[in-house]
Amino acid sequence: MSDRSSPLVSSSASQALKIRRVGIDTWRENVVYMHRDCPVVRAAGFQALSKVEVHANGQTILAVLNVVSDEHIVKGCELGVSEDAFARLGVNDGHSASVSHAEPPQSIAALHRKIAGERLSKEEIHAIIRDVAQARYSKVELAAFVVATNQYELDREEIVHLTEAMIAVGRRLDWQRQVGHGVVVDKHCIGGIPGNRTSMLVVPIVAAHGMTCPKTSSRAITSPSGTADTMEVLARVELPFERMVEIVRETHACLAWGGTADLSPADDILISVERPLSIDSPGQMVASILSKKIAAGSTHLVLDIPVGPSAKVRSMAEAQRLKKLFEYVAKHLRLQLDVVLSDGRQPIGRGIGPVLEARDVMQVLQGDPSAPQDLRQKALRLAGRMIEFDPDVRGGEGFQIARDILDSGRALAQMNAIIDAQGRREQVLQPGQLRAEVCAASDGVVIATDNLRIARIARLAGAPQVPSAGLDLLKKLGDRVSQGEPLYRIHAQYEADLRFALAHAQKDSGYALGSAQELPREFASGSPFLF
Amino acid sequence: MSDRSSPLVSSSASQALKIRRVGIDTWRENVVYMHRDCPVVRAAGFQALSKVEVHANGQTILAVLNVVSDEHIVKGCELGVSEDAFARLGVNDGHSASVSHAEPPQSIAALHRKIAGERLSKEEIHAIIRDVAQARYSKVELAAFVVATNQYELDREEIVHLTEAMIAVGRRLDWQRQVGHGVVVDKHCIGGIPGNRTSMLVVPIVAAHGMTCPKTSSRAITSPSGTADTMEVLARVELPFERMVEIVRETHACLAWGGTADLSPADDILISVERPLSIDSPGQMVASILSKKIAAGSTHLVLDIPVGPSAKVRSMAEAQRLKKLFEYVAKHLRLQLDVVLSDGRQPIGRGIGPVLEARDVMQVLQGDPSAPQDLRQKALRLAGRMIEFDPDVRGGEGFQIARDILDSGRALAQMNAIIDAQGRREQVLQPGQLRAEVCAASDGVVIATDNLRIARIARLAGAPQVPSAGLDLLKKLGDRVSQGEPLYRIHAQYEADLRFALAHAQKDSGYALGSAQELPREFASGSPFLF
Repeated sequence: MSDRSSPLVSSSASQALKIRRVGIDTWRENVVYMHRDCPVVRAAGFQALSKVEVHANGQTILAVLNVVSDEHIVKGCELGVSEDAFARLGVNDGHSASVSHAEPPQSIAALHRKIAGERLSKEEIHAIIRDVAQARYSKVELAAFVVATNQYELDREEIVHLTEAMIAVGRRLDWQRQVGHGVVVDKHCIGGIPGNRTSMLVVPIVAAHGMTCPKTSSRAITSPSGTADTMEVLARVELPFERMVEIVRETHACLAWGGTADLSPADDILISVERPLSIDSPGQMVASILSKKIAAGSTHLVLDIPVGPSAKVRSMAEAQRLKKLFEYVAKHLRLQLDVVLSDGRQPIGRGIGPVLEARDVMQVLQGDPSAPQDLRQKALRLAGRMIEFDPDVRGGEGFQIARDILDSGRALAQMNAIIDAQGRREQVLQPGQLRAEVCAASDGVVIATDNLRIARIARLAGAPQVPSAGLDLLKKLGDRVSQGEPLYRIHAQYEADLRFALAHAQKDSGYALGSAQELPREFASGSPFLF
Repeated sequence: MSDRSSPLVSSSASQALKIRRVGIDTWRENVVYMHRDCPVVRAAGFQALSKVEVHANGQTILAVLNVVSDEHIVKGCELGVSEDAFARLGVNDGHSASVSHAEPPQSIAALHRKIAGERLSKEEIHAIIRDVAQARYSKVELAAFVVATNQYELDREEIVHLTEAMIAVGRRLDWQRQVGHGVVVDKHCIGGIPGNRTSMLVVPIVAAHGMTCPKTSSRAITSPSGTADTMEVLARVELPFERMVEIVRETHACLAWGGTADLSPADDILISVERPLSIDSPGQMVASILSKKIAAGSTHLVLDIPVGPSAKVRSMAEAQRLKKLFEYVAKHLRLQLDVVLSDGRQPIGRGIGPVLEARDVMQVLQGDPSAPQDLRQKALRLAGRMIEFDPDVRGGEGFQIARDILDSGRALAQMNAIIDAQGRREQVLQPGQLRAEVCAASDGVVIATDNLRIARIARLAGAPQVPSAGLDLLKKLGDRVSQGEPLYRIHAQYEADLRFALAHAQKDSGYALGSAQELPREFASGSPFLF
């Protein structure tokens, strides 16, 4: 080179900027804001949505650039950083930083190979997940990964690698060290069925049997309540990890919110685009669930896959395929897995929404004769399968052991111990005082209940943000009703919510009435759906 | 319903908000900003990145919500709207608005069918493109569409529908009405080859032959210069449509920037995610190019597909497949198309960057003996093919006619007329005064030139933001060089840019030297690459 000897100085693009925290929640995407008149923007030729590298405090992050023309947000040579990017950089306001054009994350070549339909190696999948976990992918790149791995586009080896990679980039709990033995049982449902609060029954039952079950659950994302939302009606659920360990030592179990544990962080980031796209493909579902469970230290898992026309899994063939995929991946990651296919044709129990679901759960625990029998039966069935993980229990005896624990009141005592340990709510919330009934338009038999519609109406009524809001189902599949007879009751706290939910129920209640002959054949005795 | 008679009032979510323009350029995505303490956010349960409907001024738009905790951006019940969303709503600051949860755009079901690998109907494709053009898709949804239609995942019928749909949602120019006849010739290159400024030669040649050629071009996106950037060195290129029409009436042609014409707006929106993903699949490329050309009123098109190891199209087989796809779609849309496969193994001409490329073009027009011959030959070949669209010209005679027009000075006169009509630049810019030469590390023959590397170094030198910056290539494929002899010269305006470009050239100059035997066989006389 003719001027090889010149000292190499950095480009105008790496001139010093001053970090300014911009209070915008960009939800798991690093965004930086620069004023269009900032000399660095002009010199580097940055454009809207350029991907840039930010260097500060010895850290380098990748971020998407938003160009700003408003000096209230950033001015001069300030580098505005979104909440996500600010947290990741870990610096103070006013700290100096520099930016440069970003090279694409190293794993982008592998992403392009997947988009082209090729099979990825273990190393490629680990590289992608590392970049995802370090927030090096933009939302657009995450969406590309989610679509390119949709449906059955990941083969089962790739799903094993994906699950392992997700575990590798997060925290992994070690119960051996915490409670002195490593056998940890867990249950999980793939979701989609309103009112399906079996965990709050299963956990105290198996804990009463002496099994360790530190259950962490999610809050509702698109449903009217998650187990964490319903449990929160009765007790604190946001527990520091150290406190959770103490509770598990004391009661064998807990029912906590899992959001603080930083298990499988890459999965949380992928979910941030899977959710708006409504994509929940088999490969992603298996990797997501199993990575979280293994990272949480579970060694034995009962997995509930509800099957029904408005459930996530809509046919027995699909359920069998998904079951085998879960089994394959679990086997390779040495997780003991028992998959249960369950009746997903309608909501479980009566209440939909945190307070109403908590009422159902407590009725079952208290042996109240008006308790919903479907919730009780399903919980006993799942608890029985978990109890059969116990080497001292004979195959087929789990259900009876679970029933004895429940009927003797030991499950209730265990639940009360867990509630007290986590921090009992002093005030018992009641179902929302504003009520309206949705009634049958004709005589007939309930021949279908749409899970998605029911969930949507419950959310419009205010659940889960308003814990006392939701639905109370008065009729279930197979019930005979007369014209004008109530199908369900809407509970709300605010007038507007009640009317909004009612307006939607008026358009379509989610219930279909017909003649007994029209009941789907799966409902007939002896069919594969009578689980 | 028990309370069927109650008047239906709107939910708390549609409470009145006050619009505040937020000066953030979100680049073709509607984003709204609401403070986390705004009662509407809390009541409706909006979360970060919820998709919302905004109602104002009789308009409804879909937008992605960013939740804000900084009162400098929005406070109380203000609804901050990004520049894109503000333009689309067309209201003033302070106007009242309401928001509600958005139903997904109607075409999302079709998008999911495509993600699942199914074939879409004409109606489904039109519905998607309507929603895209109306900015009803988020960036994440756009990315999903781009990935799901990547490679050859759209069949050729679907590409016909996609192209038609893109034309249908935009403006379409009618030259019949403007210039009295409808025959409009055009040329286009699929891109990727630095220095390839043939349009600035082809347009004056065919205009001198009497053909109507209202050429609109793009600015550089990822390259060191677009035709509009290079032409802007000589003349104004941002012309109102009415002025463009006058110029075409006067000179048969123009060389304007196409960004103002609002042709194929859905394509512009899709490009905003294709670009960061580096996805440019055959189906999207065909629909993008042909929709823009047909919307611009072109009836006859010569399309240049460069082929080479660092070009967009890397093999002859791939080029043939792409050619047939262009031909199929053009035929169904009644566009006369002539596809030319050209040598894409290295940059065309010597200059890379606006000023240096304009210099090359003017040297060819002026018959300067030092003009780059490869640029001259390629332009004559393309102009010849366009001239053969003239029914009075015999097949095979176009090249000679073009050469006569160029060598007689008529092309130069035509170009000067176009420059004067558009508005000649008074000051003639010179190549950047800061210079450094990149030299051969050993003796040898130039056996490969990497288009991508050369483009990147030219951009680092400042092109196209700094028009006088770029590269001047002193050696081309097949040239013999001695150790220390200059391969190319870097021109820059700023010290830092020069050093930054040089540092990259030192790592990898983009030139490979070897022995004459190593020249790729395509370079041998008589090969399919000697076009």
